[in-house]
Amino acid sequence: MSVETQSQVQGSLRFDEARALAERARAASRAVAVASTELRNAVLERLAGLIDSSHAEVLAANGRDLDAAREAGISGALLDRLTLTPPRLTALARAVREVVALPDPVAEVVEGYERPNGMRVERVRLPLGVVLIIYEARPNVTVDAAALCLKSGNAVLLRGGKEARHTNGALAELISRALSAEGLPADACLFVGDPDRALMLALLQQDELVDLAIPRGGEGLIRFVAQNARVAVIKHYKGVCHLYVDKAADLSMAAELAFNGKVSRPGVCNALECLLVHRDVAAQLLPSLGRRLGEAGVELRADGRAMALLATPGTTARVVRATEEDWGKEFLELILAVRVVDSYEEAVAHIGRYGSLHTEVICTEDEPLARRFLREVESGMTGWNVSTRFNDGGELGLGAEMGISTSKLHAFGPMGLRELTATKFVVTGRGQVR
Amino acid sequence: MSVETQSQVQGSLRFDEARALAERARAASRAVAVASTELRNAVLERLAGLIDSSHAEVLAANGRDLDAAREAGISGALLDRLTLTPPRLTALARAVREVVALPDPVAEVVEGYERPNGMRVERVRLPLGVVLIIYEARPNVTVDAAALCLKSGNAVLLRGGKEARHTNGALAELISRALSAEGLPADACLFVGDPDRALMLALLQQDELVDLAIPRGGEGLIRFVAQNARVAVIKHYKGVCHLYVDKAADLSMAAELAFNGKVSRPGVCNALECLLVHRDVAAQLLPSLGRRLGEAGVELRADGRAMALLATPGTTARVVRATEEDWGKEFLELILAVRVVDSYEEAVAHIGRYGSLHTEVICTEDEPLARRFLREVESGMTGWNVSTRFNDGGELGLGAEMGISTSKLHAFGPMGLRELTATKFVVTGRGQVR
Repeated sequence: MSVETQSQVQGSLRFDEARALAERARAASRAVAVASTELRNAVLERLAGLIDSSHAEVLAANGRDLDAAREAGISGALLDRLTLTPPRLTALARAVREVVALPDPVAEVVEGYERPNGMRVERVRLPLGVVLIIYEARPNVTVDAAALCLKSGNAVLLRGGKEARHTNGALAELISRALSAEGLPADACLFVGDPDRALMLALLQQDELVDLAIPRGGEGLIRFVAQNARVAVIKHYKGVCHLYVDKAADLSMAAELAFNGKVSRPGVCNALECLLVHRDVAAQLLPSLGRRLGEAGVELRADGRAMALLATPGTTARVVRATEEDWGKEFLELILAVRVVDSYEEAVAHIGRYGSLHTEVICTEDEPLARRFLREVESGMTGWNVSTRFNDGGELGLGAEMGISTSKLHAFGPMGLRELTATKFVVTGRGQVR
Repeated sequence: MSVETQSQVQGSLRFDEARALAERARAASRAVAVASTELRNAVLERLAGLIDSSHAEVLAANGRDLDAAREAGISGALLDRLTLTPPRLTALARAVREVVALPDPVAEVVEGYERPNGMRVERVRLPLGVVLIIYEARPNVTVDAAALCLKSGNAVLLRGGKEARHTNGALAELISRALSAEGLPADACLFVGDPDRALMLALLQQDELVDLAIPRGGEGLIRFVAQNARVAVIKHYKGVCHLYVDKAADLSMAAELAFNGKVSRPGVCNALECLLVHRDVAAQLLPSLGRRLGEAGVELRADGRAMALLATPGTTARVVRATEEDWGKEFLELILAVRVVDSYEEAVAHIGRYGSLHTEVICTEDEPLARRFLREVESGMTGWNVSTRFNDGGELGLGAEMGISTSKLHAFGPMGLRELTATKFVVTGRGQVR
């Protein structure tokens, strides 16, 4: 309680400053919202070109951030995330061009029908307005998020982490230049260079000017934003993805799905974190799958029954007894929790208790049971005989994504361009009255 | 600042109690979410029957509320809103049967396509989970809101106003009985009988258990909820509806739209509050329209130019000079603000400044201009040559409605059954990996 109270007080210290920033973004937002598809695409094309031609400028800014980071003792994965290189900048420009190629969601007619009185009713997409992105050390988010917001007709307020502030500032400057060059207000992409948390908190109170806040980063950041915002927040919490191997599963398929889910990219949110195996097939599946995972360097955290089947002679896997906190844990590394269950119901109950509404998959040849799973399990992506790794905007056909929402309001699952819009009712008639 | 801080502290006093209530609703929500369409409809059919057969019980409870209200000096419209009668109960049962007849949004496939790797991707509707309705003195909301939530597979927490608590309790008891009789948990509709505001605040902090809060009532209540909730809130603020009569308007149509918008039911949120008239047609439209509105008892609050045209000899209309606060005001009675504008742009700017994102209509025969208006104006319903009075779930073909959202996130405009659901991605394959 005292924490929130305190942060609200801190937030209020810079309320007027935050309001002024949000007002600038709001004022600019109308011009982007009504700009044609061609004009918004032209801004992004120009931005891609500016990124290509500004390597020196951006890398110099990045160098300042990297020096500061090394001085602060930052190393390893965090330093790597902060680092830009010419190939990474080229990839960034390419990502912007891919957004240009995506269909424009603005003005898309989602549904249309005629009413008995002859009125035509359509539901038509419109931009949300002003989107506030709060992120951590990855400077590529500056460009990716801005590209998605501008493509979908929104103005964007970018509040990045202090570690990347020079790099983010340099990239944001390119975005502003691209906007101005095409005759749109530079304020449609406003970079908040001041890393003071009180300012961020004050921005999160601007619910009359900011339509949506999207925190991108670790669970701590997301919880902090969700707990302190008056603005609507779309949460992208952790992905604790489950694969349930049913007694009627094709076991070689199950082994492939488990291996791919865990090993192909263990550090991402759609990686498999927990394997649930029906007791009838556990003895057939687990020993060989355990050996294969062990060879790939995976540590297994198993319940008693799984342990007996995994800790076999000849396995190179490190197998340890799972503790309560291993269930529902997002490992983000080569660790997999494994549990043998007595029934489908027990598997679904486990998912209900420990899952994170991100990605859950059943492997079975029993179609009625699969249909039941697809209906009963609530997660943003619910799958049958596919890898959890497909829960991704690109893989599911949305094009680029802003993140994967694990809360159901407004957007659930991967969030693409459409999820950065709302729909309004457009009604046309010939003088109908009531 | 001190207000929120104080209310959060008050809220915390009853946090554990609120959490226990929300946990009960959450636990019951899964059973409703996976119940078949037939079962959910059977609950509502049974509820309608119980309302029909329980007039004595409900009217007795209502009598207690009415006695208390009269003692507290409540009268007029508020007392009327609180009053149930046999015909009103019959209408309430009929409204429940109308919800039964609506299509079930749960499990509806919104979109489906195949990916290049052969996976099938569908977006399928699922219930939100637990919906908290906070409302004031109208006991019919107890039944209407519960019916919409249960039909869409959600559990519902009902927190009504203290004036109607006996009536609400009696109606909620019928809903619980209907649930139990069909084998569903009675907690799927939980009535919060205690009108203590601290308990309401504590309920609004349960963001891990409650998926959505919908305040229904006056602007004060809605602002209070929005400012104090950690749970997602859908706001239904005021309707400051505008009609812009363009220079290319059919003026007899314009007069009908203005008259119908204001006079047919002035106390509702889609009633017309402000008429904007292009200067080129003002002299032709306003004198006769003003007389007609005056005969219907409408008071006109006009800018200088409109005043000169409205305050004509022979008019019975009361015409007064509009003050700044008349623009953007939801009168909810027989008062209409009237302004003459120099251009389309001035009309749209007026709407942008004073509108409430509820309902805006253009009257014109100039199709390109109308299309521009329909695109540029953001309101939840944007209309061309129709009355503002059509912004209503029933009139737009949604069936019953939960209210009209004036915020863009999740739902914008009238909120029907679909808007009480989310969509998840359902992916089926034959062992695809990445």
